[in-house]
Amino acid sequence: MTIRPAISQDRESILDIFMEIIAAGETFALPQNLSRASALAFWCADENTVFVCEERGRILGSYYLKPNHSGPGSHVANAGYIVADGERGKHIGRTMAEHSIDQARQLGFRSMQFNLVVSTNESAVRLWRQLGFAIVGTLPGVFRHPSRGYVDAYLMFMDLISP
Amino acid sequence: MTIRPAISQDRESILDIFMEIIAAGETFALPQNLSRASALAFWCADENTVFVCEERGRILGSYYLKPNHSGPGSHVANAGYIVADGERGKHIGRTMAEHSIDQARQLGFRSMQFNLVVSTNESAVRLWRQLGFAIVGTLPGVFRHPSRGYVDAYLMFMDLISP
Repeated sequence: MTIRPAISQDRESILDIFMEIIAAGETFALPQNLSRASALAFWCADENTVFVCEERGRILGSYYLKPNHSGPGSHVANAGYIVADGERGKHIGRTMAEHSIDQARQLGFRSMQFNLVVSTNESAVRLWRQLGFAIVGTLPGVFRHPSRGYVDAYLMFMDLISP
Repeated sequence: MTIRPAISQDRESILDIFMEIIAAGETFALPQNLSRASALAFWCADENTVFVCEERGRILGSYYLKPNHSGPGSHVANAGYIVADGERGKHIGRTMAEHSIDQARQLGFRSMQFNLVVSTNESAVRLWRQLGFAIVGTLPGVFRHPSRGYVDAYLMFMDLISP
């Protein structure tokens, strides 16, 4: 299992994974009926650095890393992660997350921030905490979950430069 | 002093105000050297509803209102406000803020959120608190202030539907 920068030939594989996750509507604040073109524009936006997790030629997951804001906010990294359905339990998410934190440090980001971690996404919340992220804010009812209604989301943050 | 929806003829006036605020670099997470075209694209993005504050034919300020996220996050409003330099003390910011909260309610938003209120922008923080916003998170050092270095920013939130 290796993590490498995405190339254009990875796009359909990334989209296959991402479209299923968008359609489930449980983790990303994107319309469940988002088009493939819009999903690609989101994941591979100009400011995003995109990586894939590959095993024997198959794409198992992907993540993007980008500045959370521009200008005076460009030293804070933001990222998004997707793992193929049926590939859970292989620690793909954790492997990509650790890789992204290393990358963020290498790219000179001073901290890393997730703006909207859906509270019902417990495995993600647990993983981010294990990796050093802290919940620095709770946003009440900001995410409309398809089966659980309005649920809270967390703002999660990690310093990358303090020892 | 009236607040009304912006029309295309307001654009240069809005940009005159906005470009000065961007160049100061103290409140918006946008590059200080942002082009006028990019500033216009930011302020008048497709998803934004833009209003201006006008007095005797002069534009004194503007604000935009938009969904903070799409899909499952589209019931939360976000907004940005600018006031012309030299027009402070007329409560233009407060008047626009109150108008925007009313508008957000009318448009069916359930809450309103500011993602990055620079902590050194004390008058804004005070105003938002007076209007009912709470600081729900503090982001350490996420804003590079031109004279004060890395300063904190607040995540501010207001429920629009609770009595």
